[in-house]
Amino acid sequence: MELLFLGTSSGTPSKSRNVSGLALRTGGGGHWALIDCGEGTQHRILHTPLSLIGLRAVFITHLHGDHVYGLPGLLESAGMLNRTEPLYLVGPPGLKRLLDAIIGAADDGLPYPLVMIDVENVHNHAPLAAFHVESCPLSHRVPSYAYSFTEREVERKLDKEKLLAAGVPSGPVWGRIQAGEDVALEDGRTLAARDFLLTPRAHRKIIVGGDNDMPSLIAPLAEGAQVLVHEATYTEAVLRKVGPEPQHSSAAMTAAFAQEAGIPNLVLTHFSPRYQGREGPLSMAALEEEARTHYHGRLFLAEDFARYELGRNGELEPAGDARASRAAPPQAAGTGTA
Amino acid sequence: MELLFLGTSSGTPSKSRNVSGLALRTGGGGHWALIDCGEGTQHRILHTPLSLIGLRAVFITHLHGDHVYGLPGLLESAGMLNRTEPLYLVGPPGLKRLLDAIIGAADDGLPYPLVMIDVENVHNHAPLAAFHVESCPLSHRVPSYAYSFTEREVERKLDKEKLLAAGVPSGPVWGRIQAGEDVALEDGRTLAARDFLLTPRAHRKIIVGGDNDMPSLIAPLAEGAQVLVHEATYTEAVLRKVGPEPQHSSAAMTAAFAQEAGIPNLVLTHFSPRYQGREGPLSMAALEEEARTHYHGRLFLAEDFARYELGRNGELEPAGDARASRAAPPQAAGTGTA
Repeated sequence: MELLFLGTSSGTPSKSRNVSGLALRTGGGGHWALIDCGEGTQHRILHTPLSLIGLRAVFITHLHGDHVYGLPGLLESAGMLNRTEPLYLVGPPGLKRLLDAIIGAADDGLPYPLVMIDVENVHNHAPLAAFHVESCPLSHRVPSYAYSFTEREVERKLDKEKLLAAGVPSGPVWGRIQAGEDVALEDGRTLAARDFLLTPRAHRKIIVGGDNDMPSLIAPLAEGAQVLVHEATYTEAVLRKVGPEPQHSSAAMTAAFAQEAGIPNLVLTHFSPRYQGREGPLSMAALEEEARTHYHGRLFLAEDFARYELGRNGELEPAGDARASRAAPPQAAGTGTA
Repeated sequence: MELLFLGTSSGTPSKSRNVSGLALRTGGGGHWALIDCGEGTQHRILHTPLSLIGLRAVFITHLHGDHVYGLPGLLESAGMLNRTEPLYLVGPPGLKRLLDAIIGAADDGLPYPLVMIDVENVHNHAPLAAFHVESCPLSHRVPSYAYSFTEREVERKLDKEKLLAAGVPSGPVWGRIQAGEDVALEDGRTLAARDFLLTPRAHRKIIVGGDNDMPSLIAPLAEGAQVLVHEATYTEAVLRKVGPEPQHSSAAMTAAFAQEAGIPNLVLTHFSPRYQGREGPLSMAALEEEARTHYHGRLFLAEDFARYELGRNGELEPAGDARASRAAPPQAAGTGTA
């Protein structure tokens, strides 16, 4: 599972950070999911290995502009690339109305189906083949949600010693047991697959929160999660100065929750553009220091184009800058109307 | 008068060209106007000397996404910078409904007034202090318009020889005549200002067209225009392949109209992203060569961040890359909620 940050700024873009957008690469066939789609997300994508053809689903956390204004343009650009596969679109109820108003007023419709799913019912749907998706409500100026993405399947591993001890030599029976099948042997015995499989590793699980001033609201999704991606818009000092009205979290608030919930990897994002300094109270260093005071796991402060790989061991590792890994030539509309 | 191109691609952005956006710098106080506002226009602005505080008016040519999807984010970012001055917004009738749907659904409202002006009535309003603005309808898949921007005032120059010959020496009277005042002299004569002013230079006039497959529809605005900025989405060969449905102009069509109308400077823009090659039929060179066959004035093919200065002599001159001229540090939301 790979996370690729397309935007890490709060409210407005800066010269180095775009507004919110996060790609979850789900492995296999170039498929991926997008969580939030601030203005300019499609522009960021042009500089990564991601393709609008491989995009399977978009998850919107809430309907503030810096999380959603890039969606109409991205959907239309996918159309100009002659996408035909359906695209799942998961978000708060107003999302469909918003898109209808924009695309209906402004353009010619899309050449592929949009399948709308209400965020509160996402657990009953399968927008992603490889992941079970759940959501929970957060606390913000407008309805805002967190999503969790849990691997559906993990590798089965044979308990080879036990098989050999039971007198079952390596052969086709091993393959059937690894596939989860109970096998009737010629000698009359039946081997229950579960008795000859090692305890599987934990299913990987990543939580991505929307804007939120009460990180503890994530708790219903936290069990078994290895990664939390959550806003840390301000340091405590700035949050006190700004006041509670914007309803954002400080680095301390997010870090303290991740520590209490026992989530081993924490990625902070959605930083106020005022944190431009190299040092001092308005620097990324200040945000990081504040978070480290409250959180003792693996801590990361996201940057645009940063990639993180969640290994099967549950450890999140930086995986470089996505701009470096683009092999293909610039994406161009080859056969659309433009 | 300065033109600063923020986006020159048609339909979708490419790695080097954003979708449509064009700044008209009106001189004085950092004021400027924006013509069209595709997604990512505010991101481009961050790399130029332009400020969202100095923006006086936005002119939308038509409601296709690549010309308008950047507007909600730009308006909200201006709000986060605590803009309080009214902003004039000129465009087709559906523009207000579109903005209401987006900003109403997605955010907290703006801290400054938007003054909406219907494109068809723009000549009766004064969204820009220094320019008279007119419009005319074009031919496209949705209602699309061209705008012309004509200097209201040109410098008055005294006919000094005539004044001296009339026995009026240099002094306060000269100043009053230069200000356009008829002056009663002590000797009983009255000097009509118009008799002692040189014929003024032509008022500078720039036309900016929206998407359009009939360049001759610009003709009602062409009189006295020194500059035409108009789409040249395709070469003739590609237009024939694509067919007439997208309703765009070829380089040849636009160039032939500018030649016929006697407009001395022509800037082509809005190029299909398929023109990525360095040479051959899908290159900028192919578009340029085709235009030159039909047009013998001063021809330019716009690039993102290209600046052009229209001198008082009516000649358009390239004025370098806007990214090089930015002196201020990155724009950041200092006091808003982000």
